[in-house]
Amino acid sequence: MNLSQAFESMLNNIRKESPLIHHITNYVTANDSANAVLALGGSPVMADAEEEVEEMVAFASALVLNMGTLNSQRTHSILLAGKRANALGIPVILDPVGLGTTKLRQSLMAKILQEVSLTVIRGNLSEIMHLYDPSVVPRGVDSILSSGEGAEEIAKVLAQRHHCTVAITGEFDVVSNGRVTYRIGNGTSHLSKITGTGCMSSSLIGLCCASGAPPLHAALLGLSIMGISGEIAGEGLQPGEGLGSFKVRLFDAFSHFTIKDYLERGKIYEVQE
Amino acid sequence: MNLSQAFESMLNNIRKESPLIHHITNYVTANDSANAVLALGGSPVMADAEEEVEEMVAFASALVLNMGTLNSQRTHSILLAGKRANALGIPVILDPVGLGTTKLRQSLMAKILQEVSLTVIRGNLSEIMHLYDPSVVPRGVDSILSSGEGAEEIAKVLAQRHHCTVAITGEFDVVSNGRVTYRIGNGTSHLSKITGTGCMSSSLIGLCCASGAPPLHAALLGLSIMGISGEIAGEGLQPGEGLGSFKVRLFDAFSHFTIKDYLERGKIYEVQE
Amino acid sequence: MNLSQAFESMLNNIRKESPLIHHITNYVTANDSANAVLALGGSPVMADAEEEVEEMVAFASALVLNMGTLNSQRTHSILLAGKRANALGIPVILDPVGLGTTKLRQSLMAKILQEVSLTVIRGNLSEIMHLYDPSVVPRGVDSILSSGEGAEEIAKVLAQRHHCTVAITGEFDVVSNGRVTYRIGNGTSHLSKITGTGCMSSSLIGLCCASGAPPLHAALLGLSIMGISGEIAGEGLQPGEGLGSFKVRLFDAFSHFTIKDYLERGKIYEVQE
Repeated sequence: MNLSQAFESMLNNIRKESPLIHHITNYVTANDSANAVLALGGSPVMADAEEEVEEMVAFASALVLNMGTLNSQRTHSILLAGKRANALGIPVILDPVGLGTTKLRQSLMAKILQEVSLTVIRGNLSEIMHLYDPSVVPRGVDSILSSGEGAEEIAKVLAQRHHCTVAITGEFDVVSNGRVTYRIGNGTSHLSKITGTGCMSSSLIGLCCASGAPPLHAALLGLSIMGISGEIAGEGLQPGEGLGSFKVRLFDAFSHFTIKDYLERGKIYEVQE
Repeated sequence: MNLSQAFESMLNNIRKESPLIHHITNYVTANDSANAVLALGGSPVMADAEEEVEEMVAFASALVLNMGTLNSQRTHSILLAGKRANALGIPVILDPVGLGTTKLRQSLMAKILQEVSLTVIRGNLSEIMHLYDPSVVPRGVDSILSSGEGAEEIAKVLAQRHHCTVAITGEFDVVSNGRVTYRIGNGTSHLSKITGTGCMSSSLIGLCCASGAPPLHAALLGLSIMGISGEIAGEGLQPGEGLGSFKVRLFDAFSHFTIKDYLERGKIYEVQE
Repeated sequence: MNLSQAFESMLNNIRKESPLIHHITNYVTANDSANAVLALGGSPVMADAEEEVEEMVAFASALVLNMGTLNSQRTHSILLAGKRANALGIPVILDPVGLGTTKLRQSLMAKILQEVSLTVIRGNLSEIMHLYDPSVVPRGVDSILSSGEGAEEIAKVLAQRHHCTVAITGEFDVVSNGRVTYRIGNGTSHLSKITGTGCMSSSLIGLCCASGAPPLHAALLGLSIMGISGEIAGEGLQPGEGLGSFKVRLFDAFSHFTIKDYLERGKIYEVQE
């Protein structure tokens, strides 16, 4: 089965089953993540109290953990829900928002890696670089990249190290499961000018994981939905329209997304070693 | 006075008085609820700290309690504000989000029913079913309904049991105060594909209660505003537009809502026993 | 350098440097504030845990403190971050949401004034009146104003008292640094009918402070961006469009805002004593 056949089957499954995606996430973009999941046919639930996350995750087909607007209570809930999801065989997607900025996030990341088995980690380049090498300060990112050790290599090494799929989003996206590595060429610069596109990407990957597909395929489809929908939204802008309209059109594109959009626009390339 | 005359008077009162609606609600849809209340002419305030909810509710004309993204602190605040609202004669609307999923929500529900006198309870069918009979598991909902004991009967029994008005939203809506029961036929399937329409419905019922109308009328008008605005938004969609545009048009319809919309489109039927 | 030259330089700096604006803010409008900052070219971060705010603010070029959906944890974080920002020379903008309603907010305000040196305070008239004279109850606002002691005088006195710039927003806006006082005549009544325009105004002032400009200029530009963008959004409304479309067009206007909009529409008048 090639990628597009796999994607078609995943999209059909999601619309048919409407899987529940449990989020422990930040309050800045929770509304956006919920609407993105709904627009693709899934069913989102946001719940982050220590007293109930273990019960809630048992209803879910995927768990999305997001480190935005972190606090000590949510830290605890993330670990509880992650461990319970592992015990139940539910895929766990981690979005390490702001990793590298504070000790609270660094310490949670270390605990997650120790206690929870992750299915997919999705972050931007500076978050993922910090995971790759915590001693690297932001200034160091450019030098490492320009010295030839690129995002593809980092994704692959991290995937092998943590036995999961790693997705790095940016000007182009990279996804690796440690054995195969892909580069995705879809997207538009508008996506970086509204809040929540990173969080929504993680939610969409969670939704795709819930369809029962291999994590590598789920990450590729989730990021393709975001990139392609962003392109459609950007191209649809009328004279005078800006980022407000772009966001509206992004959700329009989510809700109309079909395999046809991928077939016409998808830009996934396997990276040859 | 018939229903449409009552509604006209309520809508006029709201736009004239701009009543303050105190919400203790979740962070996923708080922005949507605030904008829905504003669009109809009310004045929303969201405040959920134990230290201040009793003071805040004293300024309000209605209190909306929403169990989404519940935590132990908000649990405590819900009870404090509810009791204070009762003491002050301020109507209390409860939205038991996710009732039936976790013990935290079940336990809060039990405490609310023991300590707070509710004016209106609004939920979807599975939430209300769990209130009707906590032993009913989701799978059981269909069987009970298909055995003839429908949503109307459940709303009526619950309204009598808890001495309040009960509103069930879904493909069609049901409202009962235990003596009279209505079915509302407005709405569109789009409303279930964006987050927040349930929460906004509860906020709109709170807003209508604040106009001083009987809770039964307030629930009927609140749900009619949501259903009819949803219809207008859905019919206004242009080719290529999807759920992003639908949400924008929904708020457009809220802000233009008048009694004329109800007169042209309202579908409220009294259920005959 | 006149105001418009100063503004042009500030707008250019923001788009060039993309300064990080650290927010400790409420969950109702956090998404709106983040998108407003992004649309103008800044980089928002929302983080409110006591464990990390001191580290986070060190990365920022401005700190925006907002008292909406206050709780005891966020109260503590506001003080920690404010003091750290002072130590680092980072401008601090305070939005005293709901000041005058509860003791929690009054007590936090007192502590902030004692422990944190503020750069700009922005509030609506009743919040600022309470700061001016805590014994004034809302009913008293009108009498004081009608007795001739207007918003300009209040802004000026408060600016002198707290050694900062004070901005009052409403039907018209007033900004004073205690020596010079301005009145801004831009805006539209639509801005008061969606949630978040006050919070976004404070975020935009923070963004303008981050450009290194004098706080007086930053407050004037921040409020001019909001008022002028509101005018453009309101004028762009098509037949049938309402508050949903207005909000979309507001963000469109933010993302297209240039000095040309100010030159064509700006209405800043110095108040003569």
